[in-house]
Amino acid sequence: MRTKEQFHDNLAQMRPNVYIGGEKVGRDDPRLLPGIRVYDMVLDLAGDPEWKGVATVKSPLVDKEINRFCHLPQTPQDLIQKQKLIRLGARRAGGCVQRCMGLDGITALAVCTKEIDMAKGTDYHERFLKFMRYYQENELAGCCAQTDSKGDRMKRPFQQNDPNQYVHIVERRNDGIMVSGYKMSITTAPYAEEMIVIPTRALGKEDADYAVAFAIPPDTEGISLVTRPVWHRDFKDGTTSPFCKLGVSDSLVIFDNVFIPNDRVFMCGEWDFGRRIALLFANSHRHSYCGCKPAISDILCGATILAAEANNIMKASHIKEKLTEFAGASALAYAAGIAATLFGKKTDSGVFFPNPVYSNVGRRLSGELVYHEYNILTEVAGGIAVTMPFHEDFKKGDNVDHLNKFILRNPQVPADESLKIWKFVEELGTSAMSAWYKVAGVHGGGSPIMETISLGLDYDFEDKKNVARYLAGIDETLDDSRMRQEEPVAALSPDAQKEVMVGQPN
Amino acid sequence: MRTKEQFHDNLAQMRPNVYIGGEKVGRDDPRLLPGIRVYDMVLDLAGDPEWKGVATVKSPLVDKEINRFCHLPQTPQDLIQKQKLIRLGARRAGGCVQRCMGLDGITALAVCTKEIDMAKGTDYHERFLKFMRYYQENELAGCCAQTDSKGDRMKRPFQQNDPNQYVHIVERRNDGIMVSGYKMSITTAPYAEEMIVIPTRALGKEDADYAVAFAIPPDTEGISLVTRPVWHRDFKDGTTSPFCKLGVSDSLVIFDNVFIPNDRVFMCGEWDFGRRIALLFANSHRHSYCGCKPAISDILCGATILAAEANNIMKASHIKEKLTEFAGASALAYAAGIAATLFGKKTDSGVFFPNPVYSNVGRRLSGELVYHEYNILTEVAGGIAVTMPFHEDFKKGDNVDHLNKFILRNPQVPADESLKIWKFVEELGTSAMSAWYKVAGVHGGGSPIMETISLGLDYDFEDKKNVARYLAGIDETLDDSRMRQEEPVAALSPDAQKEVMVGQPN
Amino acid sequence: MRTKEQFHDNLAQMRPNVYIGGEKVGRDDPRLLPGIRVYDMVLDLAGDPEWKGVATVKSPLVDKEINRFCHLPQTPQDLIQKQKLIRLGARRAGGCVQRCMGLDGITALAVCTKEIDMAKGTDYHERFLKFMRYYQENELAGCCAQTDSKGDRMKRPFQQNDPNQYVHIVERRNDGIMVSGYKMSITTAPYAEEMIVIPTRALGKEDADYAVAFAIPPDTEGISLVTRPVWHRDFKDGTTSPFCKLGVSDSLVIFDNVFIPNDRVFMCGEWDFGRRIALLFANSHRHSYCGCKPAISDILCGATILAAEANNIMKASHIKEKLTEFAGASALAYAAGIAATLFGKKTDSGVFFPNPVYSNVGRRLSGELVYHEYNILTEVAGGIAVTMPFHEDFKKGDNVDHLNKFILRNPQVPADESLKIWKFVEELGTSAMSAWYKVAGVHGGGSPIMETISLGLDYDFEDKKNVARYLAGIDETLDDSRMRQEEPVAALSPDAQKEVMVGQPN
Amino acid sequence: MRTKEQFHDNLAQMRPNVYIGGEKVGRDDPRLLPGIRVYDMVLDLAGDPEWKGVATVKSPLVDKEINRFCHLPQTPQDLIQKQKLIRLGARRAGGCVQRCMGLDGITALAVCTKEIDMAKGTDYHERFLKFMRYYQENELAGCCAQTDSKGDRMKRPFQQNDPNQYVHIVERRNDGIMVSGYKMSITTAPYAEEMIVIPTRALGKEDADYAVAFAIPPDTEGISLVTRPVWHRDFKDGTTSPFCKLGVSDSLVIFDNVFIPNDRVFMCGEWDFGRRIALLFANSHRHSYCGCKPAISDILCGATILAAEANNIMKASHIKEKLTEFAGASALAYAAGIAATLFGKKTDSGVFFPNPVYSNVGRRLSGELVYHEYNILTEVAGGIAVTMPFHEDFKKGDNVDHLNKFILRNPQVPADESLKIWKFVEELGTSAMSAWYKVAGVHGGGSPIMETISLGLDYDFEDKKNVARYLAGIDETLDDSRMRQEEPVAALSPDAQKEVMVGQPN
Repeated sequence: MRTKEQFHDNLAQMRPNVYIGGEKVGRDDPRLLPGIRVYDMVLDLAGDPEWKGVATVKSPLVDKEINRFCHLPQTPQDLIQKQKLIRLGARRAGGCVQRCMGLDGITALAVCTKEIDMAKGTDYHERFLKFMRYYQENELAGCCAQTDSKGDRMKRPFQQNDPNQYVHIVERRNDGIMVSGYKMSITTAPYAEEMIVIPTRALGKEDADYAVAFAIPPDTEGISLVTRPVWHRDFKDGTTSPFCKLGVSDSLVIFDNVFIPNDRVFMCGEWDFGRRIALLFANSHRHSYCGCKPAISDILCGATILAAEANNIMKASHIKEKLTEFAGASALAYAAGIAATLFGKKTDSGVFFPNPVYSNVGRRLSGELVYHEYNILTEVAGGIAVTMPFHEDFKKGDNVDHLNKFILRNPQVPADESLKIWKFVEELGTSAMSAWYKVAGVHGGGSPIMETISLGLDYDFEDKKNVARYLAGIDETLDDSRMRQEEPVAALSPDAQKEVMVGQPN
Repeated sequence: MRTKEQFHDNLAQMRPNVYIGGEKVGRDDPRLLPGIRVYDMVLDLAGDPEWKGVATVKSPLVDKEINRFCHLPQTPQDLIQKQKLIRLGARRAGGCVQRCMGLDGITALAVCTKEIDMAKGTDYHERFLKFMRYYQENELAGCCAQTDSKGDRMKRPFQQNDPNQYVHIVERRNDGIMVSGYKMSITTAPYAEEMIVIPTRALGKEDADYAVAFAIPPDTEGISLVTRPVWHRDFKDGTTSPFCKLGVSDSLVIFDNVFIPNDRVFMCGEWDFGRRIALLFANSHRHSYCGCKPAISDILCGATILAAEANNIMKASHIKEKLTEFAGASALAYAAGIAATLFGKKTDSGVFFPNPVYSNVGRRLSGELVYHEYNILTEVAGGIAVTMPFHEDFKKGDNVDHLNKFILRNPQVPADESLKIWKFVEELGTSAMSAWYKVAGVHGGGSPIMETISLGLDYDFEDKKNVARYLAGIDETLDDSRMRQEEPVAALSPDAQKEVMVGQPN
Repeated sequence: MRTKEQFHDNLAQMRPNVYIGGEKVGRDDPRLLPGIRVYDMVLDLAGDPEWKGVATVKSPLVDKEINRFCHLPQTPQDLIQKQKLIRLGARRAGGCVQRCMGLDGITALAVCTKEIDMAKGTDYHERFLKFMRYYQENELAGCCAQTDSKGDRMKRPFQQNDPNQYVHIVERRNDGIMVSGYKMSITTAPYAEEMIVIPTRALGKEDADYAVAFAIPPDTEGISLVTRPVWHRDFKDGTTSPFCKLGVSDSLVIFDNVFIPNDRVFMCGEWDFGRRIALLFANSHRHSYCGCKPAISDILCGATILAAEANNIMKASHIKEKLTEFAGASALAYAAGIAATLFGKKTDSGVFFPNPVYSNVGRRLSGELVYHEYNILTEVAGGIAVTMPFHEDFKKGDNVDHLNKFILRNPQVPADESLKIWKFVEELGTSAMSAWYKVAGVHGGGSPIMETISLGLDYDFEDKKNVARYLAGIDETLDDSRMRQEEPVAALSPDAQKEVMVGQPN
Repeated sequence: MRTKEQFHDNLAQMRPNVYIGGEKVGRDDPRLLPGIRVYDMVLDLAGDPEWKGVATVKSPLVDKEINRFCHLPQTPQDLIQKQKLIRLGARRAGGCVQRCMGLDGITALAVCTKEIDMAKGTDYHERFLKFMRYYQENELAGCCAQTDSKGDRMKRPFQQNDPNQYVHIVERRNDGIMVSGYKMSITTAPYAEEMIVIPTRALGKEDADYAVAFAIPPDTEGISLVTRPVWHRDFKDGTTSPFCKLGVSDSLVIFDNVFIPNDRVFMCGEWDFGRRIALLFANSHRHSYCGCKPAISDILCGATILAAEANNIMKASHIKEKLTEFAGASALAYAAGIAATLFGKKTDSGVFFPNPVYSNVGRRLSGELVYHEYNILTEVAGGIAVTMPFHEDFKKGDNVDHLNKFILRNPQVPADESLKIWKFVEELGTSAMSAWYKVAGVHGGGSPIMETISLGLDYDFEDKKNVARYLAGIDETLDDSRMRQEEPVAALSPDAQKEVMVGQPN
């Protein structure tokens, strides 16, 4: 498997086009390191024999074992392992495993290029598969750039005063296209090796130039990454906790007349597939959230337990009750992902795609609960999370002795452990990184209002209305045969198991 | 398959021991009919070839196709079909399909008798299997009597002033036992053919006489069923809607020195299995709720749509949003049941049992939301549900013409349909039957506080704490191998598929 | 003060125009009695010297002590006493004191007739005062008919296919007007002596005929009251509890060419005051809810305590916590009413009117919580509320002894008291009357969505925006002088004024 | 009035005993400045003639106009002005006005010293009044140190392994006492001029040494302030927004054998008043929250409006609805404070004290909603709050032009204003300061669980039970005379009193 050393070598060779605070920096800037460490962690897991089959998978496309984050899900089993990997990885990453966006991006492209080709007679899918083989052979780390800066929200792309508010084609050449525009909130861009670029919304006929999808290295000429890293206070301190060494970064990606060669172009003007590709990414990503959000609940649950133990209040009657709220948040979202797999379906591309209703209810629940879950931690931990003296005060100066006594609460928890606990609670619950997680918890993959809209489209309201019409005596019979015959793919249908492999004729 | 006529014939021969309002009535009392119609409906479905494999299943115990409600789930497939059948049946029953309690009762007995035998060397499981073959051969309809009247809640069974507050053994004979005591809130007792009786709580050594489980026809000498039927106002009217023809009944079951022959006794003094059998029933029943509660959400969702259409407000922006709340309630609970199956396990008895964490989070969510869901219907329907003139006013008297004009709202919905809709909304949302559903929605299978307690026992908090300890830097490594290796039973493990059949050596 | 006997004499003389279930009935129909008993109770309180100044007040209009429900609030003190009277009366009425609608109706007319006159030079206010003197002299009991049947909600009044969907002027004569149309959900109409009729919504120019307000006896020629009484099961039983003797009724009021003499017409075509009068009633009524909803919370709180005591679970840790939820619901809504008074203002009519922002937040909170509060009662009481044997079973038949033992739980609560408690819980929480209270709790005075709309209009969002602009550095200064100078109308009672200074002997 | 220059002069002369990050710093350390600026702002308001009567008040104790934060509330009017001042001040402080703790501390001492004296014949009240005259004459700025570090929460003070976990008397001398121990989370300590120290909990007989209250300058020998300031990123930048210039600081206060002279000792061993003084401070502070929390809602509401305008989505249907949630949060809490005043009472000390039930329901609501309110801002603002490039990127480097185009969204909002808005949203919603506000919003003045406990003690549950007993027919009569006779302290301002009678010319 590919190692983190190989990954770092590649980063070192990239064109410097990352900007932080008005200055151009290299990909070795220490402020990028907390995010890079998460990528490293994923590569480490893939290299660990114990994680074989979870962090890795044999890809039929390249016929070898690869990092699962480079793999297109083809079976229910693939989705179940993906969801599990995201959860377990996110628990170790302290929150965001950072590789899902790339995975959900290639998933959306795989499905949509096939569908465009079938509708339009184009050859995007073949181009994409060629790219995919290269991507998998090298086990590259990709990010996904979907969210445009959007400008005036009351206007569609072609109506914007500034066309750059949505990434768009500025010129069509024989060998490729030139694109310009802004993509914002692009997570992990400065340490990704490929950037999957797709539209962010439904498009109209006049928006044809905005119907563009491609994959390109983020250091391509014409691209600037104006980056905002987030990190914990002492991420440079070698002795700090795993949690504090990790972080993330988001970028405003500026495309200023960037050339995309034809073999990297996967959509070019097919505006009627704008909504489709946008939702394919969103729904795949909402399934990913059914893995990652339970991880965040797990971490918050664990931190709340540690805080309760440090306060020696585990026996207070309301503590266990509050802890089971995390159990509910975590298990319901995870179950939604499982059901999304069980009721998912094989697409024409061979990709096995999760059921959107279940993915959306799972993601929505997560988004609705995230602030509340941090609230629980705060309730149990108390004010200490924001009022505790700085770490340095425990190490030097006139008050070290007093502070090490002060921090002793539960007699079973020694001073150094107590300090680690409260520092963890502080960083988890009240740092700038914590704010990032709350905002991402609401908006990543689409905020609850977006899932509500999706459910308004996808949920079978007609069926419910028919039940009511039957019971009210308006209709004489009720036809529920579709539901009666519906069977979950897994365990049951030999057909779903049949490997219609991505990239093979079907 | 057994027909409803056969069922009615059997009812007709039962000893009259049903009391309503101080009077002894026959099982043909019209007030029992609304509940009996639900039992009939289940038998009709089982006889319908289109429902084969859903409403029926081939039981290895008797080697023939039987009503699924008489079948012990042995595979993940069984649980998935059970959950689906409950949902589809409940939608047709207008709420409660009424056969789950019996099914969950025999499931608990199957698992627990085997475990007691393994621990104690008793022969309860063999007795139970004998009973089960008789039950399946005749496709009998059973209810389950678990909830004791409980008396003083601060006291354990043996401490009660009145021993009858919990059903208990009053005498042990060679050929059987004598039992006395009260079981309350026993749904469907007056039209069930067998009653499964099990303990309701954890028991201590002094409670040994209260550790008793058995199955017995509800008309056995010494049993009285003081019954409270619930029905819709015009259930006798042949022209009324399906919804209004259906109902249910609950009974206080008085055991006054009832003889239970040995071959019907499945637990007799094994107090240390009191908690186990109580939880086996509860957890199986909570899994059933993951099928039935989505049905109630479906019905409420459909009724809300009809009300919105009748009011011609479907286009109001907040209506679709409110409707997706039903989608969330329904899909999350259903997903929890699916995940409970996927992460369930084979018990020693051969019964495949759902995962308790997922069953509990699904049931708890349902219980927490039920009042809120009725609130949504009320919000959208408006005050008309409780202020509309009585049905008779639309049929006779001086105001018929005015009333039939008054009821016209959305021009697309004719007067008679509008009247049916509002009558349905009224019965669904504001009748005595509606109150029954709200209370059952909170308490049936255990109220949210009971699931919270179960989650406090079953959820793996230690794992979450370990994640936090690792991230906080207290522990150097994190062992998540159990979760990493965990695979859902379905689709994956050939072992789970292997039919370790109930009743066969394993 | 007027007595209930005088009131009953008046009812007896009214023209029979009440219809129940297709039949014309007299005002002495026993099904109307539960509501009439509430009116009686109010008259009894007014006649009780202990209630002087609370249930009565000296009206300057007729210069004598009258029933407060006939009095136009003129001072903050009046509003505070009104709110208190409603709460105390509602607690005794078991929920709805039933006289607020009339009071809020005359309040709206008093304010609006003055404003129309000032704008249009009409003489409605003088007409109204003449009516008001008659009303107060005779201490009549009025209801208010505001809600039209509304027909197609997507259409304004003049656009309806059927003009009767809104009450409107069909003819203008020299001596008065002829009106037709339907008003629905009109509470207490069949036992009210005057009916205040006002528009239900904002009106446009084309809706001029729908801009009509008047007061008329409900038995006037041309009016039919199609009535739906709500009562508890055994309201005829002389030995039943106070709660079970009380009830209410709603009517569809059909106006079929009803003549309204000029001196009873208070608005006639002034469509531009449609929204104003509708909101005046609504906002006055929302203030009334700040008195009545706390009463309902009080009753539910008390019932929950009784249930907890009967179950002997008062010491369970979560019970007290749940009880304080009622404290929050009750005290916050009551406080909102108090603040509405403190920040209310004198209108041109002399009526002192509550602040709409505080009235609306108070009413909205109540509407949002009502289902949840019933849920709490259900959680604590358990399934017994819907499964307990009928009352008659405790009195006759074979099981009386067993039942009287069964009902014993907490040894401190004797059997007869226990039975009364559970019967009360059943009627309060799960009867048809209970459903009426839930629906009224959501919709009476306007549902939460209506208050949200009102708040969108009345709340000073500009002020909040200015705070943000100042803090963000967009504006250099912040003008908060209006809030700084704002003083509540109430200053200090003479006693509280007395400066018992800190540090001085007292 | 005292000026901020005088205040700064005083700070400059204080003994350096502030520690930050292991180093001893002066009170002129720039990291303390953000908090000091809030103190300055309060002094500026008091010096502004327009704020006379709001920010100032004539104190009878010293017979001159003083800063209201030094004044003991003696009338309902005082409490109403206090609540208003806190709200208006907090809006300008961007959150916490930082002077309430001192005010609530002296309020608690005023009431409790009088009560102790009456019970025990001591002379604490006289001592306190002497101190109070000095405090008011010099218009000093005080903080309050209540929260002890508490050590093992399962143990009472005298049981702790380390007695310093609660501040306590270590020696009693003729001229005073020696105290030691830790107080944590003490807000504003490093720039306060006096520190009010009081117990944090109910005490038992064995805890007598822990029953100690006093006032002392925070730079007294033996005191160390281990301080954790919170500030916005660019608080040193002279051009930054008002919001970013402001901050706060909390300290662990170490008392290491500190001498308190007798005239500064206000409680010394009276353990039976421990609970009383703790609750006096808490309840007074909860009333203060009814002023400050509405201010935070106002700020969040304003920021949400600005974000919606910048995104040009003010017309989206759900935005206005979300904004009214702030209206509810703000107006209900404010109303609770108003009602607390209206139903407050004069204590023996002459201090007018707010009603605890209303203070507690208001504070609890605030604490329950605070995370949710930040969630609303996040929902409306979108991910930009955590992903926007750093401020410097907009000022220098290669991408300034692109960034200034990127930031343009609503065409009505120019780039520089848009940038200010998003920066404000970022600092308000996602900074370390934001986390402080969330935690303080939950815990300051006592978390919701503490108010729930207080309500369990103070709310009149017996009254509610009596209502239920009457309605259930258990008691024959209902005595509600206490509520019937209860009148709010405030009657009417002279203007409102003027009887502009309905029907009379005005």
